Amino acid sequence: MEYSFSKSSEALSSSVVREILKLTQGNSILSLAGGLPAADSFPVAEMREAFNRAFEQGSTSLQYGLTDGYLPLRQWIVKRMAQKQIQVSVDNMLVTTGSQQAVDLLTRVYLDKDDVVLVENPTYLAAIQLFQFRGVRVIPVDGDDEGMDLDDLANKIAKYRPKMVYVIPTFANPTAKVWSMERRLGLLRQCREHNILILEDDPYGEIQFDGEPPYRSLFSLDEHPHNSCVVYTSTFSKIVAPGLRTGWALGDERVIQMMVKAKQAVDLQSSTIDQVALYQLLSQFDLDSHIEKIRESYKERMEWMHELMTRQQWEGITWQKPRGGMFLWVTLPEHIISAELLKVAVAKGVAFVPGEAFYASDTKTNTLRLNYTLLNREDTELAISRLGSAIEEYSKVVVP
Amino acid sequence: MEYSFSKSSEALSSSVVREILKLTQGNSILSLAGGLPAADSFPVAEMREAFNRAFEQGSTSLQYGLTDGYLPLRQWIVKRMAQKQIQVSVDNMLVTTGSQQAVDLLTRVYLDKDDVVLVENPTYLAAIQLFQFRGVRVIPVDGDDEGMDLDDLANKIAKYRPKMVYVIPTFANPTAKVWSMERRLGLLRQCREHNILILEDDPYGEIQFDGEPPYRSLFSLDEHPHNSCVVYTSTFSKIVAPGLRTGWALGDERVIQMMVKAKQAVDLQSSTIDQVALYQLLSQFDLDSHIEKIRESYKERMEWMHELMTRQQWEGITWQKPRGGMFLWVTLPEHIISAELLKVAVAKGVAFVPGEAFYASDTKTNTLRLNYTLLNREDTELAISRLGSAIEEYSKVVVP
Repeated sequence: MEYSFSKSSEALSSSVVREILKLTQGNSILSLAGGLPAADSFPVAEMREAFNRAFEQGSTSLQYGLTDGYLPLRQWIVKRMAQKQIQVSVDNMLVTTGSQQAVDLLTRVYLDKDDVVLVENPTYLAAIQLFQFRGVRVIPVDGDDEGMDLDDLANKIAKYRPKMVYVIPTFANPTAKVWSMERRLGLLRQCREHNILILEDDPYGEIQFDGEPPYRSLFSLDEHPHNSCVVYTSTFSKIVAPGLRTGWALGDERVIQMMVKAKQAVDLQSSTIDQVALYQLLSQFDLDSHIEKIRESYKERMEWMHELMTRQQWEGITWQKPRGGMFLWVTLPEHIISAELLKVAVAKGVAFVPGEAFYASDTKTNTLRLNYTLLNREDTELAISRLGSAIEEYSKVVVP
Repeated sequence: MEYSFSKSSEALSSSVVREILKLTQGNSILSLAGGLPAADSFPVAEMREAFNRAFEQGSTSLQYGLTDGYLPLRQWIVKRMAQKQIQVSVDNMLVTTGSQQAVDLLTRVYLDKDDVVLVENPTYLAAIQLFQFRGVRVIPVDGDDEGMDLDDLANKIAKYRPKMVYVIPTFANPTAKVWSMERRLGLLRQCREHNILILEDDPYGEIQFDGEPPYRSLFSLDEHPHNSCVVYTSTFSKIVAPGLRTGWALGDERVIQMMVKAKQAVDLQSSTIDQVALYQLLSQFDLDSHIEKIRESYKERMEWMHELMTRQQWEGITWQKPRGGMFLWVTLPEHIISAELLKVAVAKGVAFVPGEAFYASDTKTNTLRLNYTLLNREDTELAISRLGSAIEEYSKVVVP
């Protein structure tokens, strides 16, 4: 038998992070590569109780349920969203298998092969991969610390006539960037004018360290929910636990209904029992206090990594201290190719994600992403020390 | 904002079953339309204990896990499959969000737009919909009670050069058909000769009533796992509970690895906690006794529905007593259009799925599918009585 895979599967041929994870498995390599929340932040005892309460409802928690999701959970999310200046009903909402699935479903119902999606550069690598798997053209827009460059956005809209823009405006992956209000409003204005849909991916919005008021989502700033030019997606992965694979999408009811139909074809529905248990947890749990604890813990870890890196007194290596999220984005001197540095680093016992994976094009090879939420204090110290040795060794071999 | 959906989303425009479910919600309509297992067959107490044991492992049950699935669960499935004359390793296996997702993933990595897939006629409607959502051409092959007609299969292979054949050879949805050994071997021979992949969907194989030895899967009859021309998928939905949304796919490791990459892009992984809990259940549970109880219960329900229908003494209405599975397939006199009959039936308080939804083309409008697993004895009696009234009323209006 000779297998002949689809053309679109060619876009799946390499996953940098998977390869790194393979390298780090089963040995003593400390990984700063993943995007895993701290396991000690999961409300394990409360979740266990919530599952027990879910089973008290009997067999319905194990039966098929609605494709759009468990209604009490959707009603809970409606109330939560109202605290974020988002006014929606359950008909504007779809529960998904993590926010990742929301990106997939919207892509499939909204974009055809050769359609254009604009993205930040760098941006979330799995989103780039999903778009390419769909056969969609991914065009990067220039940007700075404030968000996308609005002039370049206008140029790219004129040149490529995109159907969609994909953005993570708050504590982006991988850069931890926060868009200014001016850029948020500018993006909305241009997209509305040109009838372009915005997919706002907001997995990290709650993980804020900087003491500022919460940053406004694009969805909340736009006319909504009816006729919104934004589809918003978020997840419980970072504020409760990722193993429940529960996220949600919000949007105009016509867009959401089309995503529901797609989900019905794709996997019928996400786990019933997980949704019932999650609702049971949330209905008796002080989520805001829990999030506050995650914020404090992650802020402390981030500050610690920042301090350890500062102590290294690296020359020509720069980064911005994150205001939230889970990642620290590092720029190396131009002669250091981070994918090559990774090999040295793995030999020293530490892993990270080379930045090149996050670029749709105009790839910079001298960047890398560090995660600070997974490792404990001691392991982080050891990991940064190993990273320092790797940089030192690499610099000895490759002279600028 | 004017939304402009993808071309492929047009295939999603109508879902007969969804529309029927809407009709039946929130009132006293008895539904023979769905494909829901009997809720009283779910091992609720054992599952609850299994979740508690999963939580004893601490936070890892709530963390991200491997895309291919929780390793102990995959190892358990390997052993189970060996009892079915299937020899695989964990590398030939992928855990999916129900077997529905396996169909989607394989379609996306193996078929491009305008590729051809051959199917039985009628066949599982959600598979037809998925193929059409992918832009794949769905071509039906003629068949009889023994399976696909091998001559027509040869003709269609010559004419359409298909890349894949999709079949449910054991207790099919909607017909409950069981393929003969001759047809199974004939399909394998032709597909191997022409390098065509077979997707064998086997959600109902364990639900056997007829006292015969278990029917051999195509996958077990083919050279496997390396170089197999079959990808096999099954699910825990019908033998444990559908709300866990846990299925699996088996195949050559190259095909499986491509599906794993697609799954990583699509939703990263299925629920960690559900997989850990399911493994905890299976490792301490007598699954075979449990399946035996389901078989007895479903056989009794099927016999009861068959008896009730026989008592109706309908003229010109025929069906075959199922040897297994969850559905009873009914052929009406040609002048009865089952989609029209449904309207009368809903007014009488009973729903079914009109057969036309299950045809890729050459649609027969005088067929319908009844589910016998969900309702209890009393409700089944009432439902068939209401169906009888509906047929009587319909026949008064529409004279052949």
